[in-house]
Amino acid sequence: YSHGFVNKCGDFHLYNGNHKWSVQTCFGFLRYRGETFRDSVEKGSLDSRCRGFGSLAAKVERNPSFSTLNADDISYFKGVLGEKTVVQEEERLAIANTDWMHKYKGSSKLLLQPQSTEEVSQILKYCNSRCLAVVPQGGNTGLVGGSVPVFDEVIINMSLMNNIISFDQVSGILVCEAGCILENLMTFLDNQGFIMPLDLGAKGSCQIGGNVSTNAGGLRLVRYGSLHGNVLGIEAVLADGNVIDMLGTLRKDNTGYDLKHLFIGSEGSLGIVTKVSILTPPKLFSVNVAFLACQDYFSCQKLLVEAKRKLGEILSAFEFLDSQSLDLVLNHLDGIRNPLPPTMHNFYVLIETTGSDETYDRQKLEAFLLHAMEAGLVSDGALAQDINQASSFWRIREGVPEALMKAGAVYKYDLSLPVEKMYDLVEEMRKRLSDSANIIGYGHLGDGNLHLNISAPQYDDRILMQIEPFVYEWTSKHRGSISAEHGLGLMKANEIFYSKPTDTVTLMASIKKMLDPKGILNPYKVLPHSFSSS
Amino acid sequence: YSHGFVNKCGDFHLYNGNHKWSVQTCFGFLRYRGETFRDSVEKGSLDSRCRGFGSLAAKVERNPSFSTLNADDISYFKGVLGEKTVVQEEERLAIANTDWMHKYKGSSKLLLQPQSTEEVSQILKYCNSRCLAVVPQGGNTGLVGGSVPVFDEVIINMSLMNNIISFDQVSGILVCEAGCILENLMTFLDNQGFIMPLDLGAKGSCQIGGNVSTNAGGLRLVRYGSLHGNVLGIEAVLADGNVIDMLGTLRKDNTGYDLKHLFIGSEGSLGIVTKVSILTPPKLFSVNVAFLACQDYFSCQKLLVEAKRKLGEILSAFEFLDSQSLDLVLNHLDGIRNPLPPTMHNFYVLIETTGSDETYDRQKLEAFLLHAMEAGLVSDGALAQDINQASSFWRIREGVPEALMKAGAVYKYDLSLPVEKMYDLVEEMRKRLSDSANIIGYGHLGDGNLHLNISAPQYDDRILMQIEPFVYEWTSKHRGSISAEHGLGLMKANEIFYSKPTDTVTLMASIKKMLDPKGILNPYKVLPHSFSSS
Repeated sequence: YSHGFVNKCGDFHLYNGNHKWSVQTCFGFLRYRGETFRDSVEKGSLDSRCRGFGSLAAKVERNPSFSTLNADDISYFKGVLGEKTVVQEEERLAIANTDWMHKYKGSSKLLLQPQSTEEVSQILKYCNSRCLAVVPQGGNTGLVGGSVPVFDEVIINMSLMNNIISFDQVSGILVCEAGCILENLMTFLDNQGFIMPLDLGAKGSCQIGGNVSTNAGGLRLVRYGSLHGNVLGIEAVLADGNVIDMLGTLRKDNTGYDLKHLFIGSEGSLGIVTKVSILTPPKLFSVNVAFLACQDYFSCQKLLVEAKRKLGEILSAFEFLDSQSLDLVLNHLDGIRNPLPPTMHNFYVLIETTGSDETYDRQKLEAFLLHAMEAGLVSDGALAQDINQASSFWRIREGVPEALMKAGAVYKYDLSLPVEKMYDLVEEMRKRLSDSANIIGYGHLGDGNLHLNISAPQYDDRILMQIEPFVYEWTSKHRGSISAEHGLGLMKANEIFYSKPTDTVTLMASIKKMLDPKGILNPYKVLPHSFSSS
Repeated sequence: YSHGFVNKCGDFHLYNGNHKWSVQTCFGFLRYRGETFRDSVEKGSLDSRCRGFGSLAAKVERNPSFSTLNADDISYFKGVLGEKTVVQEEERLAIANTDWMHKYKGSSKLLLQPQSTEEVSQILKYCNSRCLAVVPQGGNTGLVGGSVPVFDEVIINMSLMNNIISFDQVSGILVCEAGCILENLMTFLDNQGFIMPLDLGAKGSCQIGGNVSTNAGGLRLVRYGSLHGNVLGIEAVLADGNVIDMLGTLRKDNTGYDLKHLFIGSEGSLGIVTKVSILTPPKLFSVNVAFLACQDYFSCQKLLVEAKRKLGEILSAFEFLDSQSLDLVLNHLDGIRNPLPPTMHNFYVLIETTGSDETYDRQKLEAFLLHAMEAGLVSDGALAQDINQASSFWRIREGVPEALMKAGAVYKYDLSLPVEKMYDLVEEMRKRLSDSANIIGYGHLGDGNLHLNISAPQYDDRILMQIEPFVYEWTSKHRGSISAEHGLGLMKANEIFYSKPTDTVTLMASIKKMLDPKGILNPYKVLPHSFSSS
């Protein structure tokens, strides 16, 4: 076993199944091109698709206090950065102005590619003094419009800051620049016998600075926890160009407020992350995958509790999908088959273990599965016998988002909910919509993260009105999160109150005001427009 | 195996060896009383001992903008809290005015015991309007003078807010009030089959609110990570009485800035933590402990790397001590014996594993030890055969601080350093001090946390001058932390610049100013006095 099959995907990694990414280098950063996606663009079907993605961004007006770019600005930037990294070409700007799902489109006229923290600092200092708004951009793989300009913000593209600064073999601490692509870091670490504590489908394009700025979740969270635990330090540049050095490389440091956490997950609105120090776990070689059927959601929950206890330290994934998800995958994707006999089961669970000893880990998992069968928690199950089988089990879970796209229009929600309440929402939604749509539920059960998807033949505002704001209200009522891992960006900036009380949001706004008084950093994002425009 | 021997201790848990804690209830909160300590008090030897604790607090003057308590204030508090929880008795105040090591002594005339968040809010709102300074107090077990008044600050004691609010058996998420004693939470969880993600010697007295406010480290950090990763939410009251509800119970929530991290480790200077939500790991039953000898420090490091890789998921402690530490323990403590034949070794390592399966875990550890022996990393070793032996191995590591106290005067430093540099400091210190003191090094090698202790027949300013500021400068030069887990409190507030650059400290001060403009919350602590008095 190597981690040859770690190319699992979460909710938003739509094209890494049969449709291989064709990774294309254009002006220094990589981007995705999936067949399915290209087809859609060619067929011109994207606009209608985009309209239906659930909460659209509220109408937002350009902040009139921001300046407009002029020739002097361009000259200044060329003086600081050189000619080549001050990009004004239309084609290159067109790409950078759009998110990779073509849902959001800005009209920036300038993209800058700093090569050092000092250059980022000079850019921001100047932009702040001129009141020019900016949008930091990493791999531009986000789903909520956080990494593209809304209007004419200057794009600060981080891809040229892609150096690994140091790696400590003893402690596993990696220090690197923000523009390092996640997959490149994984490859580097693999040679050293370590892994990144996070993994996600966009790894071929997304950058560590963006991962940190968005507090990316992904597939290893259930095992290694969130970036708030794994990131040991960052360097960030504030709106006024001030460089804040919080680039510690220590596991323990209780000297003053731990300010780095402010920048983790603030989506580039408080500062631009330029360097990252991260604790990386050692690579473990023994991986096992089981695909199980459960009769009801309660059994899935009980199985999770048991798995945490009995598999404890080797558990590395606990994903679930309902029978509607499995049917969708089987009906819409080629080359996927159900590893279990085609009896009707209501739920399926994928369990992965990762450990240091093949024999013991395998025995442990087998004993656990036997116990779960005997206790009636599991109705049927298959244990992958080799890496290909393991990979094919993962393909089922991975295939759901892709199958959804093929099935027609889809309304997607990324929610955190208390595990025991999680599936109630799916069932309530089925009642609300009865036959007008296919409601499916799947996700990271181990993290309490539900991907609720509503699949319909086509986008229909009557369906949307049945879903929203109900889905947000329900989530709010159960103290859930309306964005488990995707962030708020432009898409959900105004929906923050469903998950956070007003006093907390007010405090966020005060911090924004303090760190970025002119509001030039990634404007119109994260905070509700009523708060940030003041 | 249960975790009957988890009563291990870090650096500052001096009296839990042969000298049992006699836990004494006095006005609702528990405190320690160790024989050794009481003896010292009786012998009047404490004053001279205290003088030598390294960096003494700089001379600090009472902030003249703070009001002085008057009769109207008392009436107001009695109106809000009732008579019983407004404490003015001298004896009770004397205890609350002093830290448990009797190193710091305040002169507060009032201790308040709120019973709800609403009461905390009313107290702070009033104090803020009256400009009365306050000090939040949990178990008062800190080592840096953070939890006692410096002058006449009103003490807000949290011990009556000790309710468990909820526990989710499926996800292991515990929600409770800040005044819950850590050990009580452990007992509660034990019955549910879970454990707290942190453990420390002071657990019988320290409170979870204090743990969170000081970002307590302790013995499980190497396995479960820091509180920034484990705390899912908090409720905090700001200086103006505003209650900030960040009490999420979700593993994943990317809706806006994650403000709770500001309060984790800010030592009560930004707000008073009133409720906590925390992710608790399942209790695992298989525990093994090995005590090993290594020839040199390099072997200890290599062993750590190997242990992380080969024991990976079951490794739960990796502690080291040098031969000077072991000698001290053997010479000064009764009933401790070296489990290894008395050959001279330079270093000793204690490895603990915790997992879900006794047979497999044991075999895994044995295979690892065999391999380490063959590779020459380990010169000798013993594997505990039962819980008593395991306990006696831990007693050696635990016994170091206690033996140090018995050996005479001791200068104590709690440092984070890159693992490969860590022991260089011990050796440099030996060169500097030659025969005038016994330099010993031990600590949490797995976390890069060195406890450097300088033991001398008696306190001597000439020795102190040899140590400081050298030890801080050396730590700073290697990008270490001058406080790995103890915090800054009053003791090291002015030393922050050894670990944090000026711009970062300035930013901390801006945040303090924003959240607590009058500076009433735990004044004179954490931030350098030059910054906070402005």
